[in-house]
Amino acid sequence: MSIYVVGHQNPDTDSICAAITLANLRKELGEDVEAIRCGKINAETEFVLDKFGVKAPKLVEKVSAGDQIFLVDHNELSQAIPGIKEAEIVGVVDHHRIGGIYTGNPIYFRNEPVGCTSTIVTKLYKENNVEISDSMAGLLLSAILSDTVIFKSPTCTKEDKVIVKELAKQLGVDIEEYGKELFQAGSVVNTLSAKELVQNDYKEYEFAGDKIAVGQIEIMGLDEVDTAKKEEIITAIKELVEAEGYKSLLLMITDIMAEGTLLTYNAEAKEIVAGAFDVDAGENEVYLDGVLSRKKQIIPVLSDYFA
Amino acid sequence: MSIYVVGHQNPDTDSICAAITLANLRKELGEDVEAIRCGKINAETEFVLDKFGVKAPKLVEKVSAGDQIFLVDHNELSQAIPGIKEAEIVGVVDHHRIGGIYTGNPIYFRNEPVGCTSTIVTKLYKENNVEISDSMAGLLLSAILSDTVIFKSPTCTKEDKVIVKELAKQLGVDIEEYGKELFQAGSVVNTLSAKELVQNDYKEYEFAGDKIAVGQIEIMGLDEVDTAKKEEIITAIKELVEAEGYKSLLLMITDIMAEGTLLTYNAEAKEIVAGAFDVDAGENEVYLDGVLSRKKQIIPVLSDYFA
Repeated sequence: MSIYVVGHQNPDTDSICAAITLANLRKELGEDVEAIRCGKINAETEFVLDKFGVKAPKLVEKVSAGDQIFLVDHNELSQAIPGIKEAEIVGVVDHHRIGGIYTGNPIYFRNEPVGCTSTIVTKLYKENNVEISDSMAGLLLSAILSDTVIFKSPTCTKEDKVIVKELAKQLGVDIEEYGKELFQAGSVVNTLSAKELVQNDYKEYEFAGDKIAVGQIEIMGLDEVDTAKKEEIITAIKELVEAEGYKSLLLMITDIMAEGTLLTYNAEAKEIVAGAFDVDAGENEVYLDGVLSRKKQIIPVLSDYFA
Repeated sequence: MSIYVVGHQNPDTDSICAAITLANLRKELGEDVEAIRCGKINAETEFVLDKFGVKAPKLVEKVSAGDQIFLVDHNELSQAIPGIKEAEIVGVVDHHRIGGIYTGNPIYFRNEPVGCTSTIVTKLYKENNVEISDSMAGLLLSAILSDTVIFKSPTCTKEDKVIVKELAKQLGVDIEEYGKELFQAGSVVNTLSAKELVQNDYKEYEFAGDKIAVGQIEIMGLDEVDTAKKEEIITAIKELVEAEGYKSLLLMITDIMAEGTLLTYNAEAKEIVAGAFDVDAGENEVYLDGVLSRKKQIIPVLSDYFA
């Protein structure tokens, strides 16, 4: 019976790609292993698998006594595939805090404080002198760019960057360009309706007796949101303002790459935005350079304005 | 403040040597680390440090809040330096089962199912392209030979053997010869009195109403026990037989390398030994080839003989 290599529940690109690439490495080394997943493939991961022509791992919803499991991208039982307590953990490759697992026997347990599990998997190919095929290089590259938000995450290390550069060179890929393509494929803009976008991460506040709502989505570049999408969003905002009786509704479309926010709102909020932020606000939108945080950069400003 | 690299309580040669060599590697990589120990250096380790001209790590009996600790050769808090629960664990290199530790942050945690922590430390020098000095090579080689009982332990892997061969080649050392020298230095024969040897691992039995005692020591070659030592042992056996009123007292001097046992006994036991084991027993000793286990190869035979 083969060993299952599996990432965490609600798998992201690293959990899927690290499972596939580590299983591939261990097969090359002569072991009987199989990559599996315990949840749905997300849009970003689907794009990666399509691009590099790799099949999604088999969905396994539960493991049981007798199963041998190699964990990637997690090491806490609470995050692992259902049934893990009955199964035997035979290995771990991860980049998170250590979460208290016990094993009966010595196992391979490799955790490093780097930005991505796939960075460690790439090191394992090198340490074992196993050549990285282009399809495996594509998966590793994608996972690292995803987990490190194209090097912008505070968890990103020098090692992640060096390895990304090597993998990108092998594939002849432009890192920034491919990173943006990857994030656009997984972008909420492409997977949610305008109304879902507005309500995706949404909070209500009361200022001077009026209800004001502020939502936020994070994207990798404003070109993700074209004119047609913007019009849909403004329509959704208007409908919600009427339905809920808001004084105004602001949606922060935050561009992580550019480090700024396009604030969109119902026309009635124009004056509030212009006054609060001291800007030349458009009819339904204004770009606020350097603004990323609702909690620290939007709500206090509105609060001061209404006080 | 520097990070302490430390092995387990009652440190063996691997716990001391892995701490020193890993601290040395991390210093070479620019980190502020210091090897420490939390217990007495044993005779074997003392021999190793003397031979390769390396000072014993500083004894630290307790760590406390604010201390940063890198564990080697163990990963269970119950085996760690006192005060570990107050300190912060910042790294682990080990070859045992995973024992349930939690950390707040991602840390370097490297556990491999090999025969010795120092095998992994040697790999870390290579992975980081840091040259292994002769003194560090000597410590690593000694620890691996010690932990794997010169390759005879069931925990010994191919990787341990390959690395020992490389280190021995660098030092121009004969593996078997040096291994024996190492085990002789740490041998109980050289550190205990004849009476302590007889009672080192000692059990009493009753057969047909008579008290018979059987002790056992394990050595790496019968040449560890010279004629003078044998005479001292026989004298100690005689004294114990008289003091305790035994019918006979057998001491198994088990040669792990040759996989046999020199059985020594009081003269009155000669007949019993000859009859029970069907051998041409000497006045005070007989060599039993292939006999290693008191529980499986001595006691059942005596039991049958007396029945």
